[in-house]
Amino acid sequence: MNFPIAELTGALVGSYAQHGGINRLEGANLPSKGAVEEITRDLLRLLFPGFFEDRVVESSELKADTAILIDSLAGRLEDQIYKAVRCFECSETSKRDPRRAAHELTTEFLRSLPGVRALLSTDIEAAFTGDPAAQSREEIIVAYPGIEAVAVHRMAHELYRRDVPLVPRIMAEWAHSRSGMDIHPGAQIGSHFFVDHCTGAVIGETCVIGHHVKLYQGVGLVARSLAAGQALRGQKRHPTLEDHVTIYANATIVGGDTIIGTGSTIGANVFLMHSIPAQSLVLLDDVRVRVMNKRERAEGVVDFQI
Amino acid sequence: MNFPIAELTGALVGSYAQHGGINRLEGANLPSKGAVEEITRDLLRLLFPGFFEDRVVESSELKADTAILIDSLAGRLEDQIYKAVRCFECSETSKRDPRRAAHELTTEFLRSLPGVRALLSTDIEAAFTGDPAAQSREEIIVAYPGIEAVAVHRMAHELYRRDVPLVPRIMAEWAHSRSGMDIHPGAQIGSHFFVDHCTGAVIGETCVIGHHVKLYQGVGLVARSLAAGQALRGQKRHPTLEDHVTIYANATIVGGDTIIGTGSTIGANVFLMHSIPAQSLVLLDDVRVRVMNKRERAEGVVDFQI
Amino acid sequence: MNFPIAELTGALVGSYAQHGGINRLEGANLPSKGAVEEITRDLLRLLFPGFFEDRVVESSELKADTAILIDSLAGRLEDQIYKAVRCFECSETSKRDPRRAAHELTTEFLRSLPGVRALLSTDIEAAFTGDPAAQSREEIIVAYPGIEAVAVHRMAHELYRRDVPLVPRIMAEWAHSRSGMDIHPGAQIGSHFFVDHCTGAVIGETCVIGHHVKLYQGVGLVARSLAAGQALRGQKRHPTLEDHVTIYANATIVGGDTIIGTGSTIGANVFLMHSIPAQSLVLLDDVRVRVMNKRERAEGVVDFQI
Repeated sequence: MNFPIAELTGALVGSYAQHGGINRLEGANLPSKGAVEEITRDLLRLLFPGFFEDRVVESSELKADTAILIDSLAGRLEDQIYKAVRCFECSETSKRDPRRAAHELTTEFLRSLPGVRALLSTDIEAAFTGDPAAQSREEIIVAYPGIEAVAVHRMAHELYRRDVPLVPRIMAEWAHSRSGMDIHPGAQIGSHFFVDHCTGAVIGETCVIGHHVKLYQGVGLVARSLAAGQALRGQKRHPTLEDHVTIYANATIVGGDTIIGTGSTIGANVFLMHSIPAQSLVLLDDVRVRVMNKRERAEGVVDFQI
Repeated sequence: MNFPIAELTGALVGSYAQHGGINRLEGANLPSKGAVEEITRDLLRLLFPGFFEDRVVESSELKADTAILIDSLAGRLEDQIYKAVRCFECSETSKRDPRRAAHELTTEFLRSLPGVRALLSTDIEAAFTGDPAAQSREEIIVAYPGIEAVAVHRMAHELYRRDVPLVPRIMAEWAHSRSGMDIHPGAQIGSHFFVDHCTGAVIGETCVIGHHVKLYQGVGLVARSLAAGQALRGQKRHPTLEDHVTIYANATIVGGDTIIGTGSTIGANVFLMHSIPAQSLVLLDDVRVRVMNKRERAEGVVDFQI
Repeated sequence: MNFPIAELTGALVGSYAQHGGINRLEGANLPSKGAVEEITRDLLRLLFPGFFEDRVVESSELKADTAILIDSLAGRLEDQIYKAVRCFECSETSKRDPRRAAHELTTEFLRSLPGVRALLSTDIEAAFTGDPAAQSREEIIVAYPGIEAVAVHRMAHELYRRDVPLVPRIMAEWAHSRSGMDIHPGAQIGSHFFVDHCTGAVIGETCVIGHHVKLYQGVGLVARSLAAGQALRGQKRHPTLEDHVTIYANATIVGGDTIIGTGSTIGANVFLMHSIPAQSLVLLDDVRVRVMNKRERAEGVVDFQI
């Protein structure tokens, strides 16, 4: 049995014309999702040499290997940055020559990698000293979801703060899909940062996070009053965490004016929309939990389950 | 040193015979998970032409390219639907000739794609206007987790409502693994739907969701009283959200009779098991959060942590 | 335009020397993440024959096919275990000859697989009887995130309890990335275990979980007082759940002394740091939720949103 290919094609092509906003044809040539993801994987190999290769990396070859990888990466990254700059800036701001800008941005980004590595070594230290389940620093690099996600974030942030469009967001979303943690490339994050378990954690674009901050799965650092939508673009909408703050699982902190003072701890499932002073402990009130025997339970909850 | 292959094989093959429920041998020929995932990727290329290719799509070639992709997809999809219908219906209901049914279902499904695109263009619009972090509609397609997941859902739902077994569930689970959001193919979802951050959101099989609904990460629209298990199959077990409802992070709404009225907003971490009228605002009571200075904190919480 | 490759290489290689803790060069030869993931995929094919292949598995060939797969797996797994034992034990404990230990551990592990299958058949049964959305046991294997994650856990736990370093953690993290559920290989889990939706669930290293336990997305079984960090290694830090316990979405249970008694049910979003007796029902108090009309809402919440 044959399919009515001509009819089906006509209907879809008609839909491309009608709902043009959701496709992207000639001339556009956006950065390629696939290419950016491949570049991100190679950047991780550059940050952690010898960790993801099957073969052993010899010290004697390290310099030559590194040069080859940088050379291969630089051209591909420049290409994607060029596409992004050309697509999103020419018409509006027109300030930068896309080809020249892409070259300079790529060079500056690659220059920032040793600094990224220095920060990541503090993150690994924080994970190791903070988690009794960790048996070695190597385990943290190879088998903890957070380090990959934070490594990708620290690189994406270097592109974001140089106003590279789209590319850092594609990098971040690749990491999000793998770790379950959604860190916007705009977030500013200090040293010794550790997120345990990661899944469901959300860190918004205008967050400012100090040093020695520890988060758990499901923590949201999010914006208030999203009804205003696009009108809020560029404003500080997400919380500030000062140094040595710990936030337990599934707590949600809201708003750009909200400051969590140094050394504070927020308990699990707390929902907080205002600042708290340094050295605070914030907990859900115990009274809120009712423990009852199933046989004596009140009518109102009889149909709950079991 | 050799392994005792014969002994190990004997033990495992014996286990296949004993716990037969968990393997699937000759005659069965279930839909292939790998093949369905490949088809889903190609369907996304059909919905968003030019977005996931590395090469540029030229307008002049768009029609021919689309026809080729549809032709390739149609046969493969029919094959998987055929396997699903044959495996799960022959013995029980026997109402449909599997081969004929698979052909008709595939054709009808492909005819539904322009409608799916029309809905998706409203979803992209909702994401763009609702999120100040979005810099372009292209960013939403390429770098937001939600659009891919909702696109896959809208397609899987077209198969689900035509009673195609298993295939829509494999599609949905592929999207779940990538976005962290679990939408059952049965859920009915209106236009302008946006889930921000996605991870941990769960939308159950019998949910009915109106237009202009916005959800955040970790929101659960789930069933009550699951103890009854299989006895509840087919019943409405999950909530109804009317138009213009917003539900913040990690809130859980339970039950098939629960209706969230038009224009209502549910705050983060709320747990709700009953209906609320239109234009409601539902929040956790502020009293529930205790802020205390760490040095003054009560005995009972001393051992909580730093 | 050329990139300053020599300068960029020099800076990065200098950083490798300075922050040595985060790279891994010659001599180390850690287990390969990629190789362990490939082995894990093949182990799943061994547990569920015929489910992930595109071709049909014939009964007549089952024994030969199984022997070939075991033979191929055994050598590769031994190799990875050898690397792990050599890297992490020689210097410290030195109790085992790495090559001999790797061979014996691999053999013992493969001998444990029929027992793993027996347990998994109870997990599939629990998922099927507990979830009205499940239409067949096949759907649970092919399209539920939990079964893959629990299958990987049950195998990783067999390696963990034989003191294989790193390899079980890489397996677990692969499953975490795919399901969104983070189960530490150390957790002891009884039969008939079912986690619905999975995303965001966290089960810590020293958890002890009885039979017929059902969890939902976002449930955390976590440690108290993590400030003590590495000092706590080896201690019981995570909760015990007795038989027939059900825990709803996003509830967090904390601490190694915390025991949830047989037959108890914990509601969504509960945060619990102490034990509860058998047959308890634990719910958030209804009082905590305020429902108000948006037009009448108090000043304090005016700026919340819409």
